[in-house]
Amino acid sequence: MSFEEKTISIETIYQGRMLKLEKQTVELPNGRQTTREVVKHPGAVAILAVKDDQILLIKQFRKAMDETLIEVPAGKVEAGEERMTTARRELIEETGLQAESMTLLHEFYVSPGFCDELISLYRAENLSESDAFSADDDEFIELQWLPFKEITALLASGQVRDAKTILALQTVLLDCNDSN
Amino acid sequence: MSFEEKTISIETIYQGRMLKLEKQTVELPNGRQTTREVVKHPGAVAILAVKDDQILLIKQFRKAMDETLIEVPAGKVEAGEERMTTARRELIEETGLQAESMTLLHEFYVSPGFCDELISLYRAENLSESDAFSADDDEFIELQWLPFKEITALLASGQVRDAKTILALQTVLLDCNDSN
Repeated sequence: MSFEEKTISIETIYQGRMLKLEKQTVELPNGRQTTREVVKHPGAVAILAVKDDQILLIKQFRKAMDETLIEVPAGKVEAGEERMTTARRELIEETGLQAESMTLLHEFYVSPGFCDELISLYRAENLSESDAFSADDDEFIELQWLPFKEITALLASGQVRDAKTILALQTVLLDCNDSN
Repeated sequence: MSFEEKTISIETIYQGRMLKLEKQTVELPNGRQTTREVVKHPGAVAILAVKDDQILLIKQFRKAMDETLIEVPAGKVEAGEERMTTARRELIEETGLQAESMTLLHEFYVSPGFCDELISLYRAENLSESDAFSADDDEFIELQWLPFKEITALLASGQVRDAKTILALQTVLLDCNDSN
């Protein structure tokens, strides 16, 4: 069964530094026309950095909701950049750490109702201080190492309010369960 | 430590049916000014509907990425609507099922780098056919019941490419592990 929507026309409303906003006119499977507001996003990576049964979390102010959030390190893919390169670059930029091993865990859209942002979540291991590290002047970040055994309580507390981070922490818990 | 960004000015670029796009000029903690592209979203709910050790999934075409995705039922919060009411309404609209029990599992932002969309994920149980059901003319959805014991394989296959759905499925797996 195909539910595809045919694109009739695309109007670019806004082309910004990071986001592009389009108003698409589409034909539905029943032949009717409607419009879709679509945000085009370059995509992003998130990094589950693991060391000695601990996970690296960051605290960061997010202007979109005027809240400080607990998140795993993450960042946008630059034009033409391989996603694993983005992951290595962002991990260094946000935490000063480089990873010998970087493994893809999951890839997911975060807001498929209106935005094409795809996040690739990597597990980073064998971490060491990077020589290339110089903190981004305009990024204000606090680092925190969370022991595996505190993940369940942190999730239950409701303090983690970011989808990719909850998803990453759950992945660690499931992995721990499997190996027991 | 406070990393808050002070709002200097807000320019509304676009006010649409669902989305509002703003360009915010902010002052960083170091005193420098920069701009932030912010998408304002009404928020959404997602529903983990459970019956006889099975989960209800839907297949749905998503125009933003021109892909058919496997997701849990979900939908936008209407103006002034309580989120649990949205969850009951969307479950009926998308699946024809009403739930006696509806419990909040997690609340999370999905794209905090630029958008304030907050999703409330509910677990719906004691399901029955709704009398109020009449499918939305413009929604094209295929339903599928997934047995708990097939969740691990489905996640490993990479076929689920939606953050809230991976998060919901992992919540079920962790819940199963706890009760063993």
